[in-house]
Amino acid sequence: MALVLIIILGLLSVVYGVWATKSLMEADAGTPRMREIAGAIAEGAQAYLKRQYTTIAIVGAVIFVALIFLLSFAVAIGFLIGAVLSAAAGFIGMNVSVRANVRTAQAASKSLGAGLEIAFKSGAVTGMLVAGLALLGVAVYYSILRIIGFDPGDRTVIDALVALGFGASLISIFARLGGGIFTKGADVGGDLVGKVEAGIPEDDPRNPATIADNVGDNVGDCAGMAADLFETYAVTVVATMVLASIFFAGNALLPSLILYPLGICAICIVTSIAGTFFVKLPANQSIMGALYRGFGVSAALSLVGIAIVTALQVGFTTEYTTTTGTSFTGWDLYLCAVVGLVITGVIVVITEYYTGTGYRPVKSIAAASVTGHGTNVIQGLAISLEATALPALVIMVGIIVTYSLAGLFGIAIAVTAMLALAGFVVALDAFGPVTDNAGGIAEMSELPPEVRTSTDALDAVGNTTKAVTKGYAIGSAGLGALVLFAAYTSDLNHFIANASQYPYFANVKLDFSLANPYVVVGLLFGGMLPFLFGAMGMTAVGRCAGSIVEEVRRQFREKPGIMEGKDRPDYGRAVDLLTKAAIKEMIIPSLLPVLSPIVGYFIILAVAGKSEAFSAVGAMLLGVIVTGLFVALSMTSGGGAWDNAKKYIEDGHHGGKGSEAHKAAVTGDTVGDPYKDTAGPAVNPMIKITNIVALLLLAILAHSAG
Amino acid sequence: MALVLIIILGLLSVVYGVWATKSLMEADAGTPRMREIAGAIAEGAQAYLKRQYTTIAIVGAVIFVALIFLLSFAVAIGFLIGAVLSAAAGFIGMNVSVRANVRTAQAASKSLGAGLEIAFKSGAVTGMLVAGLALLGVAVYYSILRIIGFDPGDRTVIDALVALGFGASLISIFARLGGGIFTKGADVGGDLVGKVEAGIPEDDPRNPATIADNVGDNVGDCAGMAADLFETYAVTVVATMVLASIFFAGNALLPSLILYPLGICAICIVTSIAGTFFVKLPANQSIMGALYRGFGVSAALSLVGIAIVTALQVGFTTEYTTTTGTSFTGWDLYLCAVVGLVITGVIVVITEYYTGTGYRPVKSIAAASVTGHGTNVIQGLAISLEATALPALVIMVGIIVTYSLAGLFGIAIAVTAMLALAGFVVALDAFGPVTDNAGGIAEMSELPPEVRTSTDALDAVGNTTKAVTKGYAIGSAGLGALVLFAAYTSDLNHFIANASQYPYFANVKLDFSLANPYVVVGLLFGGMLPFLFGAMGMTAVGRCAGSIVEEVRRQFREKPGIMEGKDRPDYGRAVDLLTKAAIKEMIIPSLLPVLSPIVGYFIILAVAGKSEAFSAVGAMLLGVIVTGLFVALSMTSGGGAWDNAKKYIEDGHHGGKGSEAHKAAVTGDTVGDPYKDTAGPAVNPMIKITNIVALLLLAILAHSAG
Repeated sequence: MALVLIIILGLLSVVYGVWATKSLMEADAGTPRMREIAGAIAEGAQAYLKRQYTTIAIVGAVIFVALIFLLSFAVAIGFLIGAVLSAAAGFIGMNVSVRANVRTAQAASKSLGAGLEIAFKSGAVTGMLVAGLALLGVAVYYSILRIIGFDPGDRTVIDALVALGFGASLISIFARLGGGIFTKGADVGGDLVGKVEAGIPEDDPRNPATIADNVGDNVGDCAGMAADLFETYAVTVVATMVLASIFFAGNALLPSLILYPLGICAICIVTSIAGTFFVKLPANQSIMGALYRGFGVSAALSLVGIAIVTALQVGFTTEYTTTTGTSFTGWDLYLCAVVGLVITGVIVVITEYYTGTGYRPVKSIAAASVTGHGTNVIQGLAISLEATALPALVIMVGIIVTYSLAGLFGIAIAVTAMLALAGFVVALDAFGPVTDNAGGIAEMSELPPEVRTSTDALDAVGNTTKAVTKGYAIGSAGLGALVLFAAYTSDLNHFIANASQYPYFANVKLDFSLANPYVVVGLLFGGMLPFLFGAMGMTAVGRCAGSIVEEVRRQFREKPGIMEGKDRPDYGRAVDLLTKAAIKEMIIPSLLPVLSPIVGYFIILAVAGKSEAFSAVGAMLLGVIVTGLFVALSMTSGGGAWDNAKKYIEDGHHGGKGSEAHKAAVTGDTVGDPYKDTAGPAVNPMIKITNIVALLLLAILAHSAG
Repeated sequence: MALVLIIILGLLSVVYGVWATKSLMEADAGTPRMREIAGAIAEGAQAYLKRQYTTIAIVGAVIFVALIFLLSFAVAIGFLIGAVLSAAAGFIGMNVSVRANVRTAQAASKSLGAGLEIAFKSGAVTGMLVAGLALLGVAVYYSILRIIGFDPGDRTVIDALVALGFGASLISIFARLGGGIFTKGADVGGDLVGKVEAGIPEDDPRNPATIADNVGDNVGDCAGMAADLFETYAVTVVATMVLASIFFAGNALLPSLILYPLGICAICIVTSIAGTFFVKLPANQSIMGALYRGFGVSAALSLVGIAIVTALQVGFTTEYTTTTGTSFTGWDLYLCAVVGLVITGVIVVITEYYTGTGYRPVKSIAAASVTGHGTNVIQGLAISLEATALPALVIMVGIIVTYSLAGLFGIAIAVTAMLALAGFVVALDAFGPVTDNAGGIAEMSELPPEVRTSTDALDAVGNTTKAVTKGYAIGSAGLGALVLFAAYTSDLNHFIANASQYPYFANVKLDFSLANPYVVVGLLFGGMLPFLFGAMGMTAVGRCAGSIVEEVRRQFREKPGIMEGKDRPDYGRAVDLLTKAAIKEMIIPSLLPVLSPIVGYFIILAVAGKSEAFSAVGAMLLGVIVTGLFVALSMTSGGGAWDNAKKYIEDGHHGGKGSEAHKAAVTGDTVGDPYKDTAGPAVNPMIKITNIVALLLLAILAHSAG
């Protein structure tokens, strides 16, 4: 019954998506020139995604078959569902986005408010689909498994849900990284050769890389981000359900508790949709104010909605006791969910402080630009390092408070509540690439400068909301670290306790104490991964940008008419070149987190033994969080701050556009690009995939002969 | 008897220092103009150090008095010895360095080999004094405590040795940070306003910041580095001794085992001195080859020397069993020492690969400079992230191998052996600022360009050896993490087991399992510190550089004759301004690691209780290592690579000096400056000080009423 309701609420997101898309498509798509440009962007984006998904499909097919043999058909199907829905969320979101961009540009030529409405509605479609499809995927597959006769706590159910998370993670890491490399290769390369060498403005139609840059916004910031949040959402819900099934194994209350996270997610889809209707530009023209209003309404309604779900699903006064002896009431769980919402709010505020144009950090980078490129970058790096401290403290407080309330399950519920608002948060984020594109289209189709001013104002807010989403996604991973680690240890303990059934685990003794050197080695190995992964991402962007620079220079050289505006650049070649390069570059780094737990396990197994290997892999899961949290936060916030420092100067401070300070700020922005849009955000799925692979490894070993 | 021999060998370093200084002073100090410049540098450096030590003395006096009351007079004296000797090593080293610089410039005007000899001998004085004074401090104070009647395993002995480490750490963090801020404030500020704005070359006498830049090399790269390595050396030896006293408490073999680390250090002072005589420029003029030869001889002799010490002090076949039940022989300990030497060698090679001009990383940054400032910085950041992986893997392998051989004590012996070569490694490093200064003096006194070519060649090697030393120092901290953590847990267990004597620890239950949320919170809190600390260091450099830019601009404006070479800039004002600024900026970040364990402990104590607070602080000690290792490695290697990428271009690649690529490389070098010389290296003492303060906190709590 509850499941049916959850599925119905999940379907609401699809209904909203269809309705919003339809109303978007009715908006004016502008002049023929604008349509032509938007068409080129859409074509490039579709071509890229097609190629990306084809490549991932090959990797996915291998894993699918492997899972059938190593585990079971039901598990492999779970993997497939996660992968397909994640890809679908990104694909649909991107398709809406490439249609909304031109309409936003057209609407912005009327008023800022109209532009905001279109852009935000387009973002909301992506947001609701991400949350809705993730919820539906988990809920529907869980229902099917139940209907065909599995118990809620059955290993196959757990493994199938974990595999669903793995499917989502796999798409996500490829999409985040591939899309990120594409978009920043285009952006950095295009800026270098256009703005710096040829001295033409951003998005100038004479720049052969300009369409590729706009394609990149859609495949990276829209489709890539959608896959990332889909994964975060799915993995969190799955981990919470797995934890419930372990902590309440054999408990009569398990069936209702296991649905509690789904219930929270379902009601928050409704509150997120409701919130979107409150995003309207206020009289003071504050875009951030409009977005905050909608977010505030969503959050407030969620407080009420989650209270209702708590009352109906788990009961405020019911006492629960886990198999490990922790006791709590429904009321405690509700408070944990409230803490999750509060953390979301606080992280939003902190990120806005660090990346918004109105506060000290961005202003300090802008001021440092006056003394040159070097000081701009130094100050930006300083801010990026500093920006990690407050979110980390918030997460630490969150861990302590929710653990005190309801133990590990309390932490899991807090993360679930945090991510339940993903629909709205993704809407805030997916709005960014639409406005960025709209600006590009306005520039290329030579609309009046006021239009560009409007889209620039929207874009500056987009930089902040993009940083906010990333901080939120990585923050939830930080808070969820213990949940994922708990899933790993609980699984291990289950297998060890039932070693007669799972002979591989006979005589395994876990020692997760920090005094165990294998734990320290695991922490260091995990800690190394985000750095190495970040290095690969940054290098890939540098290489792609370099090849774009060569290509653009070649076009300028072979067709001198381009710069005079007489000849048309070959936009398609740049898109094609980047597509191939990005796909090639994404493979190795994406496999790093997939293979690391497996390789790490077998190396320590060979050197020391099973017990040590399991301890080291467990520690590795926390190690990857401990450094990953800081690396990701610093990269995403720092990059956002650099970008907005440039915008702040362009708004007329420190000499404005064309000044020496502006040139230094452009350098900082360029450096921040791969930080905030490639390496930084890809750390998030990387952390999750390492954890999920470790869980699957356990399942596979449990299946093995021993 | 063994102690007397150890002290005699320690005194050899002082003898070497006196002899080498005397032979240095006999070298030709060049023209009057050169002497005048060198005099100005020496004066500025002395003025800075005087002010820095005065400031630290105030902090130190407060702590000294506090230690008398909180612990005992013997402990406070230990603190004083550590602080005074650390300061002395830095002070003497710097004084030799400011005399060697001008003599190196003069010698380089004759031949590269002559320049190398003077510069390296000056570095060797600092190196031997660092190792010798640290060894003497520990050995002599330990002898005194023994003579006045304390047992080797007495708490007062342990506390006094820990306090000695704390004294060294405190000087070290201030000196590293203060010196780092001074040197890079001058370097960055001077470059920005000189090279970039005024278009005059580096070290041009018309630049009012140029003397300050040279002063900075001495107070930061020489005195600051000396204090850092002194601390690393002292803390490692002390931690190993503490571990011995805990692991072999009540064992008749304790007195000989506790002297084993001192014996290793003593013999390696002899082998390091011997190695210095093999540093001679070979026929192929390879400076690095000359240094490697000396290092190779030292290392090979150390293998023999440590074998002799092992035979005499612990016996190859003697069986040892710790109180925790680990058994090993003297032969196992010898192998651990060998592993320590091998790790040192491997880290040297890896660091040279990442920072030397002959390999892919530096070349890739140079190549990326062709497409502009942005790509230079992106590639530099990518390399800096990547450069962490191999050293981290080496450390992991080291932990596993040495732990398998002889448990935690084996790891401690490996770190001891690693640091026993500090004398030679510091010599490699302290040679850097001398050659850097020599180049400056050559430029300012308008010596023929060939001289500058020679000093530049020496300087490029100096950049690599500086990165090597930092990698080595932080690598030893990574390997030593478990030792320091073991000292903390062993101490705690000792207090808990004897709660009747230490009532504060009654009913404390330790749980260092990763499944404990307070452990995760501790890991995150510790993980946050290097990021926050790095942010503060970077910001401080940015601010100081900004004030230097303002000052130089003011001088250029008020005295237009400076640029025409008719008027002399006021060098003293820039030095004075930086001195004040650096001292002010160093205080808050230096207190961060001192206060964090204390504040962290009391907050968790208030929220959750003693057991949780001790677990969280313990986890914090590992957290600070896990992120600190990577942050420090990435900053020091990345910075070195950026610097040498600039040098590589200046050698005539990608257009050479004055090309657009060169400008981009200058930006990268500027960014790398605070990375490699301020924030990065200061992370090393930061890690140690956090650990030492935690140990002292335990001692103080044990002393308290409960």
